[in-house]
Amino acid sequence: MSKGLPKRNEDYSAWYNELVKKADLAENSAVRGCMVIKPYGYSIWEKMQAQLDKMFKETGHTNAYFPVFIPKSYLSKEASHVEGFAKECAVVTHYRLKNADDGSGVIVDPEAKLEEELIVRPTSETVIWSTYKNWIQSYRDLPLLVNQWANVVRWEMRTRLFLRTAEFLWQEGHTAHETKDEAIEETVRMMGVYAEFAEKYMAMPVVKGVKSESERFAGAIDTYCIEALMQDGKALQAGTSHFLGQNFAKAFDVKFANREGALEYVWGTSWGVSTRLMGALIMAHSDDDGLVLPPKLAPHQVVIVPIFKGEDQLRQISEEAEKIKRALSNQNISVKYDDRDTHKPGWKFAEYELKGVPVRIAIGPRDLEQKTVEVARRDTKEKQVIPMEGLDDAIADLLDDIQANIYQKALQFRESNTHTVDDYETFKKLLDDKGGFLLAHWDGTAETEERIKTETKATIRCIPLAGNKTPGTCIYSGKPSQQRVVFARAY
Amino acid sequence: MSKGLPKRNEDYSAWYNELVKKADLAENSAVRGCMVIKPYGYSIWEKMQAQLDKMFKETGHTNAYFPVFIPKSYLSKEASHVEGFAKECAVVTHYRLKNADDGSGVIVDPEAKLEEELIVRPTSETVIWSTYKNWIQSYRDLPLLVNQWANVVRWEMRTRLFLRTAEFLWQEGHTAHETKDEAIEETVRMMGVYAEFAEKYMAMPVVKGVKSESERFAGAIDTYCIEALMQDGKALQAGTSHFLGQNFAKAFDVKFANREGALEYVWGTSWGVSTRLMGALIMAHSDDDGLVLPPKLAPHQVVIVPIFKGEDQLRQISEEAEKIKRALSNQNISVKYDDRDTHKPGWKFAEYELKGVPVRIAIGPRDLEQKTVEVARRDTKEKQVIPMEGLDDAIADLLDDIQANIYQKALQFRESNTHTVDDYETFKKLLDDKGGFLLAHWDGTAETEERIKTETKATIRCIPLAGNKTPGTCIYSGKPSQQRVVFARAY
Repeated sequence: MSKGLPKRNEDYSAWYNELVKKADLAENSAVRGCMVIKPYGYSIWEKMQAQLDKMFKETGHTNAYFPVFIPKSYLSKEASHVEGFAKECAVVTHYRLKNADDGSGVIVDPEAKLEEELIVRPTSETVIWSTYKNWIQSYRDLPLLVNQWANVVRWEMRTRLFLRTAEFLWQEGHTAHETKDEAIEETVRMMGVYAEFAEKYMAMPVVKGVKSESERFAGAIDTYCIEALMQDGKALQAGTSHFLGQNFAKAFDVKFANREGALEYVWGTSWGVSTRLMGALIMAHSDDDGLVLPPKLAPHQVVIVPIFKGEDQLRQISEEAEKIKRALSNQNISVKYDDRDTHKPGWKFAEYELKGVPVRIAIGPRDLEQKTVEVARRDTKEKQVIPMEGLDDAIADLLDDIQANIYQKALQFRESNTHTVDDYETFKKLLDDKGGFLLAHWDGTAETEERIKTETKATIRCIPLAGNKTPGTCIYSGKPSQQRVVFARAY
Repeated sequence: MSKGLPKRNEDYSAWYNELVKKADLAENSAVRGCMVIKPYGYSIWEKMQAQLDKMFKETGHTNAYFPVFIPKSYLSKEASHVEGFAKECAVVTHYRLKNADDGSGVIVDPEAKLEEELIVRPTSETVIWSTYKNWIQSYRDLPLLVNQWANVVRWEMRTRLFLRTAEFLWQEGHTAHETKDEAIEETVRMMGVYAEFAEKYMAMPVVKGVKSESERFAGAIDTYCIEALMQDGKALQAGTSHFLGQNFAKAFDVKFANREGALEYVWGTSWGVSTRLMGALIMAHSDDDGLVLPPKLAPHQVVIVPIFKGEDQLRQISEEAEKIKRALSNQNISVKYDDRDTHKPGWKFAEYELKGVPVRIAIGPRDLEQKTVEVARRDTKEKQVIPMEGLDDAIADLLDDIQANIYQKALQFRESNTHTVDDYETFKKLLDDKGGFLLAHWDGTAETEERIKTETKATIRCIPLAGNKTPGTCIYSGKPSQQRVVFARAY
């Protein structure tokens, strides 16, 4: 059934943009690059937040909140950090408007100029480390494991709903540790949390790895990441975890008395995922009919649609539907019963396909007689007739099956689109033909990386942590390479 | 036991400021007027959020997210709205920094000036109603019941942690309706939700009422509110719910086709509570030893402190403590077991008093022998010895009792500090002597209200919805009055 969506294989980009709007996920606002996250989209984000927050707390973190504004001088304290963020930030220069003398409207009051400009946070390392200076005196104050859920602003020139927006929502963890090893352990642990979330909840397989120097976070010693492959063969960075070394501790003079009583700089990490994950979720699974949501993140896991003529039939069907709804709710399955008489069943079927509801139950008069329902799964579009008796268990199993199936499908897609490449011509041809992850040898230099990027638009997504570590020869320069790295064109 | 806190009856204001800092709730940041909400304070706010969010969803609302930036021209579209907010807003004028040519550091890039300035949202009516214009076409799209959790900025000149800060966290509900009556019903409903939350969860009695014209939200037809009384006799506005009439619909041209097919302007409401509730919670119940938290909002409802000498004793006590912790957790009671050997029990007792943990359980070697524990409640400081057998039920009851007791105590305080006053001299004397809520007749004019405010610093907190509605004579002007209103000095 057509939803008026462009087809993926005809115009993937238009398909994505239309899907985001038609499925009521988000839309552009009047402010350039800033999006409105609509109720349905936000309810998916809330599910993501709830699960991530649980995982952060289980790994010992607590939430806190730091100011949205960062004094300009703070941003400048860590040299590479300011270099990375100064070019794309929103600057507050005044704190008052006033009526124009000529009656033409409201203008910025020139007398209300700030002594020091404030930056709307693009990330919070600087304001947080300036605070940590007062929170940390001794090794007893460590580790400090804090997370923040917040909005951040990066003045991107080319924006795209969820994937790249001037304002986005995210979480940023900022931790402080006694030793380098502990901080690296934390960095790796949080990459692991992100990978687990992506795979178990988003049903999206990811490659864990380390960024090359040129792709590192501005101010980090090492950036760990998870990388996913979208259906158009482009990669998407889905989360990053940074080992900051002592960089921010030095920039903000954060020292602690160690177990021997000597003063040392604190070791730091930071890590974040954002509403960009919404873009990844959409692109990883959805099809030409609309969203495909993994049951674990679907706001409604099941929708019940009555097929009826007249109020009498509706009343009888509703009685059964409400029973089913209760039974499913008792299994912690979220159910919507759509008994609106303003829309026909066919319209509703299309609507819930578009919105990615994993399971649709239809109940008509014949079902009542036969004590059955028609169950349709969103991922494969298969329909089956199931007895009402024991339906709750059947649906619970079906949701598990859908979750697993979506993951397997994405995994198979990634596997059939991951290629080991040994020469630059094949590399370029594969990129142009179908994209995907290309495992190739690289000589480890920023020069080669940059040249490949300029010539092919492919970047090093990561140096993978798992897999084959055999040395070889760089596909570009022919120089020695320690291991294959993952190349791809990326979002 | 002294925590180094000032005494309430000596310097209430200093007591509050110190308590907020010493109990690790919040602190001032390097950015003027912006606070850092520390992990312990934030965990209380999270509890508030979770409960409020549940209540909003139970009343049919969904969450969404709108941009942090508001174009200057939007703010200006509703005349009284801009008048109310223009004087205290953060203005973004540029979108880039650059290195100064003279190498002196990072400066605002004058070439990156925005065509139109952006305001950091002080509240979101304008950006939301500009969005609703596209969401609402017909009565079928109504009611639209949306809430947003967000940070907002109002450039206050005199700030105070939680009570008045340049940036604060809040929720803002924005709803759109077919009829005036429905919108008023929603406004009153949400005031009711706030009152229920304040009384049942914060254990803080509130008066429900309507604001006088001069205290109304900028852009509202009517502002409903809940008002609480703090221990120093000052009132605190704890939540507001605004009936917006068609003001914002007209400003942003939001019309709908009604059931007869005619175009009409939509009716609106907005309502919000903020981190200011943290200030109310602190001031409503706490004492000279620290915080007193109602069990329903306490991050840890119970703390267990072992009294031990040596590792052997600790091991034995820990075994029992862990059993108790499990039993309590099974009753959904949150428990912290503090077995640190770096701090003595007395230090821990004082610490958890300061932090307001409702129930403290101490276990020593003699308790192990006698199969008992010592239980201390934070609100009354009473201690009792309770058998380990059945302890979970006893603690569950005790927590209920504490919740009820804290509420009753605050209610009694309010009742004994609410006075019916019939002449201006008594009015002024009561205000100076002990403050409190003064129920007095008022002639209904803004002039009288303003004069009383100038002369006494007391404002009309609200025209109460419940209680005596007998007409009378204004205490100031002697003119007729329809009913008594609530006067108080306020935060």
